[in-house]
Amino acid sequence: MTEKDEAGVVTAGLLVIGDEILSGRTKDKNIGHIAETLTANGIDLREVRVVPDVEEEIVAAVDALRHRYTYLFTTGGIGPTHDDITADCVAKAFGVALAVDPRAVAMLLERIPAKDMNEARLRMARIPAGAEIVLNPVSKAPGFRLGNVIVMAGIPAVMQGMLEGVLPTLQTGKKLLSETIDAGLREGDVATELGAIAKKHPDALIGSYPYSNERGFFTRLVVRARDADKLRAAVADIEAMIARLKPTKAAI
Amino acid sequence: MTEKDEAGVVTAGLLVIGDEILSGRTKDKNIGHIAETLTANGIDLREVRVVPDVEEEIVAAVDALRHRYTYLFTTGGIGPTHDDITADCVAKAFGVALAVDPRAVAMLLERIPAKDMNEARLRMARIPAGAEIVLNPVSKAPGFRLGNVIVMAGIPAVMQGMLEGVLPTLQTGKKLLSETIDAGLREGDVATELGAIAKKHPDALIGSYPYSNERGFFTRLVVRARDADKLRAAVADIEAMIARLKPTKAAI
Repeated sequence: MTEKDEAGVVTAGLLVIGDEILSGRTKDKNIGHIAETLTANGIDLREVRVVPDVEEEIVAAVDALRHRYTYLFTTGGIGPTHDDITADCVAKAFGVALAVDPRAVAMLLERIPAKDMNEARLRMARIPAGAEIVLNPVSKAPGFRLGNVIVMAGIPAVMQGMLEGVLPTLQTGKKLLSETIDAGLREGDVATELGAIAKKHPDALIGSYPYSNERGFFTRLVVRARDADKLRAAVADIEAMIARLKPTKAAI
Repeated sequence: MTEKDEAGVVTAGLLVIGDEILSGRTKDKNIGHIAETLTANGIDLREVRVVPDVEEEIVAAVDALRHRYTYLFTTGGIGPTHDDITADCVAKAFGVALAVDPRAVAMLLERIPAKDMNEARLRMARIPAGAEIVLNPVSKAPGFRLGNVIVMAGIPAVMQGMLEGVLPTLQTGKKLLSETIDAGLREGDVATELGAIAKKHPDALIGSYPYSNERGFFTRLVVRARDADKLRAAVADIEAMIARLKPTKAAI
């Protein structure tokens, strides 16, 4: 179910910017949080990309994703150092100027004595022309929103504060309702009938997510739909299937 | 430093396939592990994408990434259920047939009694024409390698076993050496001089990674280079800078 053209569906892309994620030095903690938060707020995250701190890569990804989804969120690359180039890249993608913004300077001055303000710190106050400021409740250095692109910090606590602040200003769609059923069976035991049920319920997204415990591999079935009746109908068919099927000796 | 054309550099893309990551239901644990493992083995992970269980999205991403990097790794979507469509999509991207492979069937039969083999389980034995099998030391259902695309499971323990098995067969490049220096200073205290050092050492990748503790925000500086002398030269300049700089009253 792609739904790109379905009325009332609000979509998002996420662009994670930073060499440290691609080298494995830093383990990303933002993708899962953003995915969960957007889903809970009726915004469907459709794609994530992780790119290095390289201008042409960031500009290309911003342009690919901002035209495709209702919103594009970015994390990372808005600090004061030479490798923080997200604002430059977003301004370039939109073809607008990037300049020190007095509103952002005022925010920085809440945490930085005037005598310690320097050129590097002022980089954090550079906001593309036409952008709105996204507040940073943790350490003040703001993010921004330009068109449908929302630029946030990479530090998880700061990103989370920014996202919380920006969410009420966003368009949201009808939430995807979700129900999880632990099949208590192997994936291979349920797969054939589950496929038939998925075909019978084209408005429900039905997924099978295997997990293992000390007794071997089992699966949880997740049904998602925007309509509660359609969700219930698919869940009922799955529950009847589970009641009917008997476990086999297969390990997977 | 993009290095795409630098001799001896081996690159990779990673494609994470699965609705469950984009909905936030499952928190990805594979990106960090793969990033770290590839880096340690002299393969530079250059890009990650996460896409849903939608054929056209997967095919497009496979095609975009496999032409761009030395290798493309995929995780997820190789189980027996209707939403497991990775093999179909990779075969489609390469324009080759997808059929049940006797070698893969034999592996499955180590875990599945013949009487419990069914059409759904046989889906896990479908291997694109011309592909090599990637062994699954955990639960037997194999992955495969077609051209430069390595298709692995989504369950972390299974993926890790597959990656470990496939790594010795891959071309590897000169490792990126890395050194981390805790600056004990705010990012804004080091940023100006650090930028100058980064310009002076174009063959070193210099990153600044802020973190917070009870005393506020500080930064760790990471220097990476393929040449040990170039690494040491950049590290020496950074250590001299840190010795010279005094902390300010700024909070960030």
